[in-house]
Amino acid sequence: MKLALKQAKKGLGQTSPNPPVGAIIVSSRGSVLGSGYHHQAGLAHAEIDAIDKTLANHSARQLKNSTLYITLEPCSTCGKTPACTDSIIKHQFARVVYGCSDPNPAHRGRAKQLLSRGGIVVTSCILHQECQALIRYFTKAVTTGLPWLIAKSAMTLDGCTTLPAGQGPWITGKEALNDVQKLRSQVDAILIGGATLRQDDPLLTLRGNYSKKTQRQPWRVITSLSGELPEKSRVFTDIHRDRTQVYLNKSLRQVLKSLAKQGIHSVLLESGGKLLANALKNDLVDELVFYYAPLVGGGDKHAVQLNNLSKALYDIKGKKFGADLRIRGLIKRC
Amino acid sequence: MKLALKQAKKGLGQTSPNPPVGAIIVSSRGSVLGSGYHHQAGLAHAEIDAIDKTLANHSARQLKNSTLYITLEPCSTCGKTPACTDSIIKHQFARVVYGCSDPNPAHRGRAKQLLSRGGIVVTSCILHQECQALIRYFTKAVTTGLPWLIAKSAMTLDGCTTLPAGQGPWITGKEALNDVQKLRSQVDAILIGGATLRQDDPLLTLRGNYSKKTQRQPWRVITSLSGELPEKSRVFTDIHRDRTQVYLNKSLRQVLKSLAKQGIHSVLLESGGKLLANALKNDLVDELVFYYAPLVGGGDKHAVQLNNLSKALYDIKGKKFGADLRIRGLIKRC
Repeated sequence: MKLALKQAKKGLGQTSPNPPVGAIIVSSRGSVLGSGYHHQAGLAHAEIDAIDKTLANHSARQLKNSTLYITLEPCSTCGKTPACTDSIIKHQFARVVYGCSDPNPAHRGRAKQLLSRGGIVVTSCILHQECQALIRYFTKAVTTGLPWLIAKSAMTLDGCTTLPAGQGPWITGKEALNDVQKLRSQVDAILIGGATLRQDDPLLTLRGNYSKKTQRQPWRVITSLSGELPEKSRVFTDIHRDRTQVYLNKSLRQVLKSLAKQGIHSVLLESGGKLLANALKNDLVDELVFYYAPLVGGGDKHAVQLNNLSKALYDIKGKKFGADLRIRGLIKRC
Repeated sequence: MKLALKQAKKGLGQTSPNPPVGAIIVSSRGSVLGSGYHHQAGLAHAEIDAIDKTLANHSARQLKNSTLYITLEPCSTCGKTPACTDSIIKHQFARVVYGCSDPNPAHRGRAKQLLSRGGIVVTSCILHQECQALIRYFTKAVTTGLPWLIAKSAMTLDGCTTLPAGQGPWITGKEALNDVQKLRSQVDAILIGGATLRQDDPLLTLRGNYSKKTQRQPWRVITSLSGELPEKSRVFTDIHRDRTQVYLNKSLRQVLKSLAKQGIHSVLLESGGKLLANALKNDLVDELVFYYAPLVGGGDKHAVQLNNLSKALYDIKGKKFGADLRIRGLIKRC
């Protein structure tokens, strides 16, 4: 299952509106015959990708009686691709081991039933937490109609998001900036407010290594109440301008609902402290990623402009990026 | 030298106006004969403590020709105790190895000269950085006339020092609060402003385990411009009230200078964001210790109320205390 998880991660940020899934096929003698993952919506599901890869090097007879390890319960319905359960039964697998159940209540457990009826031994909930964490964007979207929202901010150790006037725009160093590129490569959209557009005129694109590794640029979403959005902003004029969406006079919840309806399951909020506070207050944030520079004090802006309200976090992890520190945690829901 | 450092640390926070020092005596055959450290000012220096401990179990003949490892260059002047160099020569050590030189420019290198003249082989600068770090409070005081100032603050991940109204006074958990007790046990004084006294009426004492391990309570220093200090405050009325000092209408630099003159070489600033900002602005802070609770947002107070100025840190270290994170770093001087 660890190998299957590794496969699944290759599709992270590329598969919406489907979840990332990985699969490994192991022979009855215990050797790995093949592996696969879901590359992007419309292409083969992970189990089919793994079967295809296996059949490229082995005969159908060798495939027979082997075990399929897959991070997510196989699909049992025809969508853009045929139901995977049919294919698994057809290839006469002896056993299917999956990490977590389909989060969609309408489908959950159906594959287990169908496969068992087809004479296949089914084991579920292996590395359950890891497999669930991998599809949390998808789970949030299909169960709530809202995307998974990651709020990212870079600040000094005391929470200032700007340097003193004239000391440059970047608080954090290049290792942290590079990690932001990685974050962007794993989400479907980046969201900012009109204020950030006016102040920073950001590109919000994948650049450098991350633009090569992935075909797809994340959506760039601007939300504004005033509608004052400079026409010459780079998000409206660069080569990726068809990947920019604007929402005027909508609540943040309305914006996020609309994005989820388009199959956008993960959104990176790269806004200032006001919009972030709004998102926290309205219980829309799922995850925080804060980068801390080795500085104390700064300009006059704070990372979160949230007055007299606090939210608890859990599953907090720290990691160094050059001289900077990244703290990542999930927001507790009551 | 590592063993000597371990000995020295036993005296941390107890030796001012002397530095903490540790010593190990090793025979010509390579076995440890004895160890010692400087317990407190007026008592034996580390090398004399180690010699006494050795002579309790061994003859003077066994001591002869052994090696003395000591974290700091031995003293060469008569103070409250006789010069250690005389004692080292008298006991006919073959070799003296010390970690760092005396930071006092008037004494630096003198022991090396005297011991060499006495026929003893002298090696210096062994584990130099660790030995220097150990006496940084002392070094700062003897070279600048100001104590080493550690600014401590507890906050949410975005720098708020208070919780929303009605959610209790403590941001951090008991493991972090216990670590603050350890910090207090290693300094000579704790400093707050009048505002903190009025708001929190803090005890500023060593409690629990730390009050047993150490004989001495740190000084409690209150600095106030307004002079509005409630007479019934606990620092004025509890059993340690003779360990409270008040400074009215003095600049922070004046307060710190006066403390250094009294032999107070390390001060823990446990103030609010205004006094901390003042200390940073006036280049008086040497070290920051920030505790972060797993929270975002809070009340309306920020850890550092420093507008349009930032200070860089180096040698930053992170450590978990329960659910909280401690970040500790040194302030860069230009």
